[in-house]
Amino acid sequence: MFIELDLQSDTPLYTQLADQLTEGIASGELKPGDPLPSIRRLAEDLGINLHTVNKAYNLLKQEGLLQVHRKTGVIVQPDGMPGVTEAFEAKLRRQLRSLAAAAAVRGMAEEVFAQESKSVYRDIITNRGGE
Amino acid sequence: MFIELDLQSDTPLYTQLADQLTEGIASGELKPGDPLPSIRRLAEDLGINLHTVNKAYNLLKQEGLLQVHRKTGVIVQPDGMPGVTEAFEAKLRRQLRSLAAAAAVRGMAEEVFAQESKSVYRDIITNRGGE
Repeated sequence: MFIELDLQSDTPLYTQLADQLTEGIASGELKPGDPLPSIRRLAEDLGINLHTVNKAYNLLKQEGLLQVHRKTGVIVQPDGMPGVTEAFEAKLRRQLRSLAAAAAVRGMAEEVFAQESKSVYRDIITNRGGE
Repeated sequence: MFIELDLQSDTPLYTQLADQLTEGIASGELKPGDPLPSIRRLAEDLGINLHTVNKAYNLLKQEGLLQVHRKTGVIVQPDGMPGVTEAFEAKLRRQLRSLAAAAAVRGMAEEVFAQESKSVYRDIITNRGGE
């Protein structure tokens, strides 16, 4: 899987890394049980700090998307992905609300905003089956 | 305008404050030229640090949603809100993409995600005219 980090971005590197791994799982490029590189290896490959990779892996472990084993290493959750819980939905709505407010204040219409949402979702999913 | 901050949230307080002010402008509750409380006053009212309010005001000033005058204080941008720039659109898509990936990995369907986006946008806008 190809990971690209933007060092100029306002988004913290660990968030960018976690987002891209999440996309990889959503698109099916990373499959349940697939091994991920060790923290040290990925940090070296990306030229970033060990702690940054560790933080991203831990975040995804907490969310139930990864399993971290001391011996066998880091793998994509093999026991079923987490579902849409109430807590997830509440958080998603809060975050969408923040983006919707920024869009609305700049005069982006409701339909355009909804269309953008649809189109980014489709972009991610499009890789499924395209392997 | 009623502002409610969640001290338990993962979202930084200055982000929550900036989001709610943005919503206030988007909904029309805050109008161009409207005065906002001084940093000191708002910090006292909300029981938060001066720096937190300052950071939120500065963020919105940078985005062009507020004007900060040394003498007359902080007001909602009276000279036209910023539009949908290429930079804004790129940032919006990046952020939406992160949310879409998290939703997709949990099995939330494209239509549901788009519908959520539409519904939060409508929630914000619904206050317009309802004054």
